[in-house]
Amino acid sequence: MAQALFLETHRQTLEAATRANRDRGFWTPYVEAPSRKAYGETAAEDGEAAFKAHLNGLFEIPGHPAAGGPLGKEESPFGLALGVTYPSTSPAALIDAAQAAMPAWAAATPDVRATTCLEILERLNKRSFEIGHAVMHTTGQAFMMAFQAGGPHAQDRGLEAVAMAHEIQSQTPASALWEKPQGKADPLRLEKTFRIIPRGVSLMIGCSTFPCWNGYPGLFASLATGNPVIVKPHPGAILPLAITVRVAREVLTEAGFDPNLILLAVDEPGAETTKALVTDPAIRIIDYTGSGTFGQWVRGHAMTPLVFTEEAGINPVVITGTDDLKGLCRNLAFSLALYSGQMCTAPQNIFLPREDIATDQGSKSADEIAEAIAVALDKLLGDPERAAGVCGAIQSPATLTRIADAAKLGAVLRPSIPIAGMDGARSATPLLVTVAAADEAAYLTERFGPIAFIIVCDSVEDALDRAVRSTAAKGAITALVHGTDPAVLTQAEDAFATTGTALSLNLTGGVFVNQSAAFSDYHVSGANPSGNACLTDAAYVASRFRVAMNRRPASAA
Amino acid sequence: MAQALFLETHRQTLEAATRANRDRGFWTPYVEAPSRKAYGETAAEDGEAAFKAHLNGLFEIPGHPAAGGPLGKEESPFGLALGVTYPSTSPAALIDAAQAAMPAWAAATPDVRATTCLEILERLNKRSFEIGHAVMHTTGQAFMMAFQAGGPHAQDRGLEAVAMAHEIQSQTPASALWEKPQGKADPLRLEKTFRIIPRGVSLMIGCSTFPCWNGYPGLFASLATGNPVIVKPHPGAILPLAITVRVAREVLTEAGFDPNLILLAVDEPGAETTKALVTDPAIRIIDYTGSGTFGQWVRGHAMTPLVFTEEAGINPVVITGTDDLKGLCRNLAFSLALYSGQMCTAPQNIFLPREDIATDQGSKSADEIAEAIAVALDKLLGDPERAAGVCGAIQSPATLTRIADAAKLGAVLRPSIPIAGMDGARSATPLLVTVAAADEAAYLTERFGPIAFIIVCDSVEDALDRAVRSTAAKGAITALVHGTDPAVLTQAEDAFATTGTALSLNLTGGVFVNQSAAFSDYHVSGANPSGNACLTDAAYVASRFRVAMNRRPASAA
Repeated sequence: MAQALFLETHRQTLEAATRANRDRGFWTPYVEAPSRKAYGETAAEDGEAAFKAHLNGLFEIPGHPAAGGPLGKEESPFGLALGVTYPSTSPAALIDAAQAAMPAWAAATPDVRATTCLEILERLNKRSFEIGHAVMHTTGQAFMMAFQAGGPHAQDRGLEAVAMAHEIQSQTPASALWEKPQGKADPLRLEKTFRIIPRGVSLMIGCSTFPCWNGYPGLFASLATGNPVIVKPHPGAILPLAITVRVAREVLTEAGFDPNLILLAVDEPGAETTKALVTDPAIRIIDYTGSGTFGQWVRGHAMTPLVFTEEAGINPVVITGTDDLKGLCRNLAFSLALYSGQMCTAPQNIFLPREDIATDQGSKSADEIAEAIAVALDKLLGDPERAAGVCGAIQSPATLTRIADAAKLGAVLRPSIPIAGMDGARSATPLLVTVAAADEAAYLTERFGPIAFIIVCDSVEDALDRAVRSTAAKGAITALVHGTDPAVLTQAEDAFATTGTALSLNLTGGVFVNQSAAFSDYHVSGANPSGNACLTDAAYVASRFRVAMNRRPASAA
Repeated sequence: MAQALFLETHRQTLEAATRANRDRGFWTPYVEAPSRKAYGETAAEDGEAAFKAHLNGLFEIPGHPAAGGPLGKEESPFGLALGVTYPSTSPAALIDAAQAAMPAWAAATPDVRATTCLEILERLNKRSFEIGHAVMHTTGQAFMMAFQAGGPHAQDRGLEAVAMAHEIQSQTPASALWEKPQGKADPLRLEKTFRIIPRGVSLMIGCSTFPCWNGYPGLFASLATGNPVIVKPHPGAILPLAITVRVAREVLTEAGFDPNLILLAVDEPGAETTKALVTDPAIRIIDYTGSGTFGQWVRGHAMTPLVFTEEAGINPVVITGTDDLKGLCRNLAFSLALYSGQMCTAPQNIFLPREDIATDQGSKSADEIAEAIAVALDKLLGDPERAAGVCGAIQSPATLTRIADAAKLGAVLRPSIPIAGMDGARSATPLLVTVAAADEAAYLTERFGPIAFIIVCDSVEDALDRAVRSTAAKGAITALVHGTDPAVLTQAEDAFATTGTALSLNLTGGVFVNQSAAFSDYHVSGANPSGNACLTDAAYVASRFRVAMNRRPASAA
């Protein structure tokens, strides 16, 4: 029986993931390199072929409710018209199907649910090339990044959530004997049983830039705790999640469960159904990744109080000193250029004191360091092929407008330009603009995309203070501080901790501030406006279920 | 140093409480019997004297903000005018003081916070007699119950919350080394540190019937996770929480923390300040116990989404058969009479099939069983002294009105009468009224107090169905089912589990449906309208804090 097989196959991985969540060192069962050794000799070609087979046709999902006509208008930022359509139906029909599917899944043990989820993740892992191409041609990520962020790294984050959900559920035993001494009389004895009860239908609202990486945690946290999940992809990035839903349904079916435990809610730009789902009282859990504007709407209009969001922030960098100026510039240039800054973790605002920045190349001014960053960007992106590999394409045309608008806000230190040779694609390298520290209207607005500001401050104190205050007021997921004075670094640690901003210090090598590693880095703290939830802490899973109990007199000992 | 002493003194108790939370068998470090052996030869007299010393005077709380005049108009349901007044000040001043107190407490380790809380609980335990009298003369509980529910049992629930909060916080290590292999190159290595950051000022809104038992979980869950707590007692039951606050402040001061981590917000009937506190954006966590009407207001108007409530439900009993009719009646009579039904766990609606109820005394009709319950009540309460000890007094005059109104809803099977000899006290024994199953307006309204309905149904199926549907629609904290058919019991278990109602089966001995034992029984599930939170599961503590992290390149291995 498949359930038993999955239990047997995945138990050790589940235990290892649970330990990893607690140790928070490096760990992963999924190979991040798109290697033939790990994925098979023909995996790359097979995956690309599988992706191409989806194009210009209906994406069939056996057994999926489909009362409406096929929908879907995805277009690749690289210029390809995907032509994929998907089964569609009404929110009410999706909710009905999800509710009907729930009881048997709710009655399964946490072990069965977790290992079924791990089987889904393993099958997704095997399709990482196919998913990588799907992510690439919806988000605009270059292939290597799309493979990793849509494949193994997303699977890591899904597994992290499954393991956390399993651990918290497992804190409650299935049964207990309660035996209360009564002096010389016989003790009072009760047999008690406890069962995990899910909350109800869960809605996962996907984003356009990291549909899998940001989507899997909520999806798997809800599924692992017994809740059916309606997956509502961004209309521009459906395919990666459609593949995910289909794979999950296959595994659920094999395990003897109703595949409608996971459903796809497809819509098209201009005719979104998200609001209808959010405001349906049958939706009991919502996971949302996207803009702060719509995030606020979701939080304000959801019928359920259980809304987990990753919204938007303005991530600061503060440079107060370094013993590796070259490494600093190289590292920061890469962080600004990676996926053309279209990451919720990418820096936007670079705060520097005006003068006397101690470096291994002597004392520097803010202008000199800003210039060095611009030079590092030019060097990183000088070769068009390499630039395309780092920057990828621009997901939304609105980002190009934002770049043009941002260039008018100050002195352009480095212009954003299209990448040579990326014909048919939207592309743009990072724009670097110097703005006055007093011009908060310019830099205290999130400007999503390859847009960064150099903000020259009066002092180290002033730079840190502006950066920290911005995280409290506007939210931030990451912060990066460079310094050589231990007192400054400690001050930065304390200050950014109060706003729950994940702080990286002195990154000059092969780790970048935009990277967040599952099982080790908490992604978003929930403590500032960049989101109200954290991938993946106990709070992210603990309220997705309740415990029902019963008790009866125990038979005599 | 006191912090180290508390750590040393309470570490084992903390570990044992953590294990108990997971095992869910019987466990407690606090003796529930008001015995001289446990509490000291003169504890009873000393406690009563300490209570009396509070009367007719100002309850001083050293260092407490007190810009306003002393307030307080508590009156004992047993007839005593307490004459105690308390320091008062504005919500804004309380919030300022709480915020100023927070940083050092937030920076303390979870171990230090937990063991400081355990020291508070231990000192409260030593004052259980004093608190018992204070609870008695505010809630109307008879002394034995007031001692237990306001003393050791409340301390149990506080400890349960501290242990759960400590365990969930401890799942995140203080630091980690992240080491990612890079093939033949040196691994990437990062040192990471994690710190627990509290959410901000917490508000605990107490109730009039179980100020300590229902108040300690939220109070200690917030305190243990680093949040200052403003304790807002019900204006009718201030003293037990005022004593609690003063004891907690003494311990916090000894441990080197600002005593304003816990503050008392006192008001008087008709001039309540609760709404001003609830709607203040600085209040980041709210714990509320009380009516569903005000609970709905709190949930709807709080500026924070973190609102944990125990509101109200209508607890059903379903009698489908028994092999101990005498035990059933004796047990149920006690459950109806205990504290005159003024418990959130007391039964209100007794559903029975019309005929053919199999018992050890032969097949019975609903009428016969109802009559037997009435007789058992008369027997239990026949001796006035015993009746006073079981029923205590009626906390609110509104309850007497409710009893009078309820008597008009159907055929009175047993009238509610005052208890002889309780001069000057409000007292009332249980009212038993038969209403038609179709008359849902009568019995599907919560009627708090010693009011129970006999509802004769068409069949076992009908009786169970009505009871379960009522828990889903109106909420219920407990349910009690009697039956001899295993299929019926299984059906009841499944059905009540779906609505998250704690179900007791076949209680005929010394355990009563109204009792909820810390470390074993989850109190309120959060899965039906009787409350949105559970004492104490992981969800109750996990979102009271966030984790902030930082990372930096590790020095070479």
